[in-house]
Amino acid sequence: MPSPTIDGTLRGYVIPIGGGEEKMNNPEILSKFVKLSGGNDAVITVVPTASQLDDTGKRYQKIFEEIGVKKTYSLPITDRNDAKNPAYVKILEKSTGIFVTGGNQLRLSTILGGTPIAQAIRQLNAKGVNYAGTSAGAAIVSQHMITGGSSGTVPTEGGVNLAPGMGLINTIVVDQHFNERNRLARLLSAVSFNPFLVGIGLDEDTAAFIDHNNVFTVVGSGAITVVDPSDIEYSSMAKARAGDALTLLNLKVHILSSGARYDIGERKAYVS
Amino acid sequence: MPSPTIDGTLRGYVIPIGGGEEKMNNPEILSKFVKLSGGNDAVITVVPTASQLDDTGKRYQKIFEEIGVKKTYSLPITDRNDAKNPAYVKILEKSTGIFVTGGNQLRLSTILGGTPIAQAIRQLNAKGVNYAGTSAGAAIVSQHMITGGSSGTVPTEGGVNLAPGMGLINTIVVDQHFNERNRLARLLSAVSFNPFLVGIGLDEDTAAFIDHNNVFTVVGSGAITVVDPSDIEYSSMAKARAGDALTLLNLKVHILSSGARYDIGERKAYVS
Repeated sequence: MPSPTIDGTLRGYVIPIGGGEEKMNNPEILSKFVKLSGGNDAVITVVPTASQLDDTGKRYQKIFEEIGVKKTYSLPITDRNDAKNPAYVKILEKSTGIFVTGGNQLRLSTILGGTPIAQAIRQLNAKGVNYAGTSAGAAIVSQHMITGGSSGTVPTEGGVNLAPGMGLINTIVVDQHFNERNRLARLLSAVSFNPFLVGIGLDEDTAAFIDHNNVFTVVGSGAITVVDPSDIEYSSMAKARAGDALTLLNLKVHILSSGARYDIGERKAYVS
Repeated sequence: MPSPTIDGTLRGYVIPIGGGEEKMNNPEILSKFVKLSGGNDAVITVVPTASQLDDTGKRYQKIFEEIGVKKTYSLPITDRNDAKNPAYVKILEKSTGIFVTGGNQLRLSTILGGTPIAQAIRQLNAKGVNYAGTSAGAAIVSQHMITGGSSGTVPTEGGVNLAPGMGLINTIVVDQHFNERNRLARLLSAVSFNPFLVGIGLDEDTAAFIDHNNVFTVVGSGAITVVDPSDIEYSSMAKARAGDALTLLNLKVHILSSGARYDIGERKAYVS
């Protein structure tokens, strides 16, 4: 569950990005994240833990500086000890925006899960600090996080692997590189386990800017596929054997491109 | 439009198959087609025109003979002249089941379109003769036939190419090798042009047995994805530029596996 909001403060934006966001030439998504976080006066802290590359944090610092941010940090957290470092928590507390890079979402959950860093990220977001994460950094916002599964369009029993995520938002399950890696099958498998979830499939260079009312706006060059199982009449998930094709009756699907909005609470899509 | 039904006669089954149907070891789909066409007393005529291989017709004759059919024919139609041959029409008229093989659906439409063979197939089906077609032979049953398009899950303007098909059934658009070739994107593009169509995505080794009431039952090892745009609230197709991601609000999707049924007229899915 998301960290409870303290009376009177509004939660910061939660911004899952589908990976592969434009970084150099008109970086629409990153610029909008910066703008919402204070523009040139934003303080952006990068958490590059998902990545195995040494320069991922510095690379994003440079990108944010090119966008005009004067103060950027990167936290070199590579193991659970690092994730308990109070100095890093202090830096997060100075931030107006937190950016979590791509890589492997299981590195994020295994290294950050249950640590002061994870706790700080959740609490700061609840107090108004914006969170943006790309690829693995997008997956981890879900409480029930997709870590793997079958590609294709048709869901199967056993077609998705879930693990506990950071849970900045608990009613959606996020998937990324969605169109590029043909991930509808695994997203459908995920929502068919328990229709309280809404599935959000993010294409590359596409982000959901989720506001404190749990309404998101689509930003970027691709689309967001929303799978809403609220009206589902039947799912064969409980009796299917491993690998079996599933029967799922009455899924609602929206394809949302730039400017379209979706109200996660009301489960309603709008053109703009 | 389908050939009008003569009073009192019921249309034969229309059986699009997603390609790659099991042929040797328990060929469930082909056996059911044979059973509905008279079992051992069926007369099955193969139309191998979509294929460029010389032995496709003979190969299917052998498969049907192994299932127990005593009388099988294959019509070696490879150009429009062949498709006017009255001897071939006579053979079709003796048939209880017509089977159209895979290959290239544009060969079917360009060679058979508007010929006495195409006319005979439509009229015979209207009079009760069963039609089964796999892959290209499945695509051609649609009045608006998919001939190509983008793979992936997210539709785009220009993401599908349509051509006139044989039109045994005019309210559905059929796609095949659906999960195997990630064809949701092009099926969504097709239905978003005009929501009077229902999109039917057939996995390999999976068939829709469409009866004279336009209700189909799923047979085979995969699934059928039904995309019903009846309740669509908005489509950006009319104003999108080539390659743009689309916005489509409120699509209904069903994933149907073996035994599930769908009423095309009522647009309603049933578990069994």
